[in-house]
Amino acid sequence: MTRTNLFISAALCFCTVAANAQVKEDFVPSPNNQYGKDYPMVNSERCVRVKVYAPEAKSVKLDISAVKYDLVKDAEGYWIGESAPQDEGFHYYQLNIDGADVPDPSSLYYYGASRWGSGVDVPAADQDFYALKNVPQGQIREIYYWSEVNKTMRHCFVYTPAEYDQNPEKRYPVLYLQHGGGENEYGWPQQGRTAQIMDNLIAEGKAVPFIIVMDNGTWTMPRPAGPAPSGKGPIRLPENWAEGFASTLINDIIPMVDSRFRTIADKEHRAMAGLSMGGMQTRAITLAHPGVFSSMGMFSGGTISMEDIKSHPKFAKEMKLVFFSFGSRELDAHMFGFGSGIEPGQEAKDLVAAGMNAHYYVSEGTAHEWQSWRRSLYQFAQLLFK
Amino acid sequence: MTRTNLFISAALCFCTVAANAQVKEDFVPSPNNQYGKDYPMVNSERCVRVKVYAPEAKSVKLDISAVKYDLVKDAEGYWIGESAPQDEGFHYYQLNIDGADVPDPSSLYYYGASRWGSGVDVPAADQDFYALKNVPQGQIREIYYWSEVNKTMRHCFVYTPAEYDQNPEKRYPVLYLQHGGGENEYGWPQQGRTAQIMDNLIAEGKAVPFIIVMDNGTWTMPRPAGPAPSGKGPIRLPENWAEGFASTLINDIIPMVDSRFRTIADKEHRAMAGLSMGGMQTRAITLAHPGVFSSMGMFSGGTISMEDIKSHPKFAKEMKLVFFSFGSRELDAHMFGFGSGIEPGQEAKDLVAAGMNAHYYVSEGTAHEWQSWRRSLYQFAQLLFK
Repeated sequence: MTRTNLFISAALCFCTVAANAQVKEDFVPSPNNQYGKDYPMVNSERCVRVKVYAPEAKSVKLDISAVKYDLVKDAEGYWIGESAPQDEGFHYYQLNIDGADVPDPSSLYYYGASRWGSGVDVPAADQDFYALKNVPQGQIREIYYWSEVNKTMRHCFVYTPAEYDQNPEKRYPVLYLQHGGGENEYGWPQQGRTAQIMDNLIAEGKAVPFIIVMDNGTWTMPRPAGPAPSGKGPIRLPENWAEGFASTLINDIIPMVDSRFRTIADKEHRAMAGLSMGGMQTRAITLAHPGVFSSMGMFSGGTISMEDIKSHPKFAKEMKLVFFSFGSRELDAHMFGFGSGIEPGQEAKDLVAAGMNAHYYVSEGTAHEWQSWRRSLYQFAQLLFK
Repeated sequence: MTRTNLFISAALCFCTVAANAQVKEDFVPSPNNQYGKDYPMVNSERCVRVKVYAPEAKSVKLDISAVKYDLVKDAEGYWIGESAPQDEGFHYYQLNIDGADVPDPSSLYYYGASRWGSGVDVPAADQDFYALKNVPQGQIREIYYWSEVNKTMRHCFVYTPAEYDQNPEKRYPVLYLQHGGGENEYGWPQQGRTAQIMDNLIAEGKAVPFIIVMDNGTWTMPRPAGPAPSGKGPIRLPENWAEGFASTLINDIIPMVDSRFRTIADKEHRAMAGLSMGGMQTRAITLAHPGVFSSMGMFSGGTISMEDIKSHPKFAKEMKLVFFSFGSRELDAHMFGFGSGIEPGQEAKDLVAAGMNAHYYVSEGTAHEWQSWRRSLYQFAQLLFK
């Protein structure tokens, strides 16, 4: 767990609160429930209600957004209760049954917080952009490949746009899109809703069709050398911090994708982005390897500063698109030191004044969670390869 | 749950036994564990050992292969214990914590028994045929499509062989491959190991490359009319039993696949197979629609009898390959009535004597479980489209 603490510890506290006594009784089943299951449910106040059968248990809790809520047992042995209002979008959660942290047997499962566990999607005012619609459908393809760097088979997912199989002569740009700490390559296709976001954007003519590669950045990530960042001021990880994954990406993943897919295999048509740890990897790798990518995006994963530009003239000259974003609640909480002292929006303005094509986006009302990153992909994808 | 009881109730009993006191201490982590997790483990006697932290629980059980084993709590609050020896191959299981049936938080999750829950793969003497190897890799593609029959978006997986993207002019035969009752479209790609079985067979020249479509047969399945089968004599479901899924398959799925993939879109290059409920669907649909498929396979899902042949002359004339299989433990237990009175091997011989290309396979030492069906696919795939 230690390797992920850097990325998730900021939001953690362990308090237990009583279930909300005054909730609005308009709960409906979550879209992330297992087939045929009514619970978890969410109401119009964005409270999450769970129900689990545990007739012999002494204590059952709902653990969501770093708060534990006591459930109440009914006469039939079911424990039921609800959380306080949650932010819009996707949240990991778990149950605690007599001290055991376990997934809710009624929900679908997602990988985050270094575990496969429960997830619930709270309806959002803007959820239409990631809804499954009857538009031309791309594909998420599951890929295994040999990694010479790691001497093992590896696993990734590749999104191909709907038109890919209909245009056997056409070649496409590629975005390499990374998950966060404690997550894996399933994050973007599942909780990220990559295919739905891209299919909808392409159908509306708001994004050009491109390939997206979603690989696992955890396996080969070396630990940062030296003491852990203190949290005062923006985290600036050393440039060589992500070289473990960089080696796999540049020597194994990119050549594999260029050989198995109809890519345009040059820097101009290759981008990297990621969330949290994946954004930090994107920052380190694109600064250290400016000849590989021409566009980069960091979602809740740092910024590019004027100091970076001055110390990396090749990056400054060749990077055609720089994008960074945060959830507004992250900035409010000074997560990773951003929003305290250095203001990311000002950093973006400074880059633009220096002649860079830099973009900055704030996801209103969301924290270090997937709704921020769905929205960030939605924004970033509209800028890419144009 | 009632709709699946027909297919899973035969093996269920609810007894609790003490954990095995004399086990061989050569346990190694299961290949189905979550990243970084040591448990569950399996030893050379094929016993499954689990370990879960539940410091306040009064009782924790391992529930596997229809037997519940009491675990024992250690001084640190972990509950540990093991099952009796299991058959080779994949098994669903769950934990019971103070009366709550929950997934083991250490395992990967699979859909079966009408739930997403834990799975463990017990090493098998013949596991090489479904091992992930560095051979040319096919792809499992996740597909969404509009169903006019059901007026909704539906979801399936499609396996394309490794050479598919390298031969943009070549067209391929298609196998429609169905899961069992209480399972879904994830069964064959995940616990079935379809891609690994096919990639290995194709690499060895033992199977011709073909496309495999794995859809969800549950949503539209009508209940059989009349009383439930009694279990005396082979179950013979009425021919119209699977028309709900047949309508979706013939009107929506097959045209979608023929439009999105480079198929050879005729009966001669189209097969259907399935396990358990999926085998029963295959039997009913190929008998009722003999002009759609030219090959069919039933894995633990019934047989074709001489009565079927006599009453379905078009099926008898046009079906180029008939395959049925069982696990030897299913026959020992007279599951679904087979092995009592009517012997499936004799039925296959009768079909051959009548001029049919009929094949029969018994998976030795396995029951109504995935190892029987992995082996059945391995056998069936070598016969298909040749």
